[in-house]
Amino acid sequence: MKLATFIPPGGTSGLTGEVRGSRIVTFTTGASLLETLQDADRAPATGPDHALSEVSLLAPIPRPPAIFCVGRNYAEHIAELGSERPEKPLIFLKLPLSSAAPNQLVSPPAATQALDYEAELVLVIGDENQIIGYAVANDLSARDLQRSEKQWARAKAFDGSCPWGPWITTADEIPDALGLRITTHVNDEIRQDGNTRAMIFNPREIVDFIAETCTLEPGAIVLTGTPSGVGEAFDPPRYLQPGDKVRCEIEALGVIEHSVL
Amino acid sequence: MKLATFIPPGGTSGLTGEVRGSRIVTFTTGASLLETLQDADRAPATGPDHALSEVSLLAPIPRPPAIFCVGRNYAEHIAELGSERPEKPLIFLKLPLSSAAPNQLVSPPAATQALDYEAELVLVIGDENQIIGYAVANDLSARDLQRSEKQWARAKAFDGSCPWGPWITTADEIPDALGLRITTHVNDEIRQDGNTRAMIFNPREIVDFIAETCTLEPGAIVLTGTPSGVGEAFDPPRYLQPGDKVRCEIEALGVIEHSVL
Repeated sequence: MKLATFIPPGGTSGLTGEVRGSRIVTFTTGASLLETLQDADRAPATGPDHALSEVSLLAPIPRPPAIFCVGRNYAEHIAELGSERPEKPLIFLKLPLSSAAPNQLVSPPAATQALDYEAELVLVIGDENQIIGYAVANDLSARDLQRSEKQWARAKAFDGSCPWGPWITTADEIPDALGLRITTHVNDEIRQDGNTRAMIFNPREIVDFIAETCTLEPGAIVLTGTPSGVGEAFDPPRYLQPGDKVRCEIEALGVIEHSVL
Repeated sequence: MKLATFIPPGGTSGLTGEVRGSRIVTFTTGASLLETLQDADRAPATGPDHALSEVSLLAPIPRPPAIFCVGRNYAEHIAELGSERPEKPLIFLKLPLSSAAPNQLVSPPAATQALDYEAELVLVIGDENQIIGYAVANDLSARDLQRSEKQWARAKAFDGSCPWGPWITTADEIPDALGLRITTHVNDEIRQDGNTRAMIFNPREIVDFIAETCTLEPGAIVLTGTPSGVGEAFDPPRYLQPGDKVRCEIEALGVIEHSVL
């Protein structure tokens, strides 16, 4: 099942819906997406339906309680940045306000002149550290701040630095999350073209590692690292420019696409 | 005015109170501490009062929307760690679940064998990035994880890593936050004895720097760095041990005191 949070045509607040092909069907339960996702029942949505093209998708969980991220989790990406292969997952944080709708305009802070993209597989956490869903994120990164600031809070957790979605695909639909093609296009040019099987630390290892120190509450999300092909790795670097359109896609999970202001 | 969140004798949920000397007086408005703090009115509390010694203090804002921290903001602390003086504030994050009551038992994660203390001045943020209050925090740090993990998420944002309080002192009572003695005692031995005037970046500079990239919502808190005297800086290091009692105090703002499990 694919669960989305959306604003219907003419609406003003978010509803929970089930995506079926090119349509989205509203749940009439009044439950949030997270509540619906945690309900093992999987009762299909039965309310009003709309063309997906006519609704505004929000971040599936608009404000996750926490956003954990893993850096340097694909060997080719480590190589392209000249970084060392980590002995354990490199965990960093974004903020709840980093969460942004999958397809909305990205407005980077004036403090950066080096905005970059990173397509990533998102894990959605339920009770007891279970991975109950998957989605797509763009781990937007301010490379100049990342270089000049030892900790990545400003470089990686700026407002809107985590567009994600387009919806959450329930884990039962993805028997093997380690075999999904993951790509990024910028203005129709393919930049990243990897596969989640190339991860160094797998989703279960990552979640268990975080859980050693930090409680993962239901609705927390985990970004699992990006394959090679980021703008930083080109010579000269190819950072995102105003007007660029970024499209991140993961096989079976969907597409997020956003332009840069 | 000094505002606390507390559980009264026999109570089960948090109330907002005004601390007056050794007593705490309940507000009968039903407003949270943050709402009370944001109300410029400063109407005194008029409800039931208790001896401070009979109530359980919670973190003043039990779950701040964000916890920003500054590393290496006192020159002597930079020297004792052999670090470089930063050219701009070194910002890192704790998690909302890092927030802990000022005087409760600290239960560090099993993943660390090198727990350390850092007494810090806390800024409490209101509307439009205003600093509307001050408090005391212990920026508990897992030094072994801090050394072995490039980003400090696990080392600094573990559950309960930010005991703070004991209450929020409204900014109008602290005309100069840059002249306050700040100390840490471990088992009655003084370990840190500094003054906030030794900060490299002052509170206004820190908040404005964070705000360049991240919205500070009302109730967000900012930890402003620690003076010299941390356990890591001793030779050999003197990390916190089970049963140790840590006491962090800032002049005019109060004392937080917690034992280590």
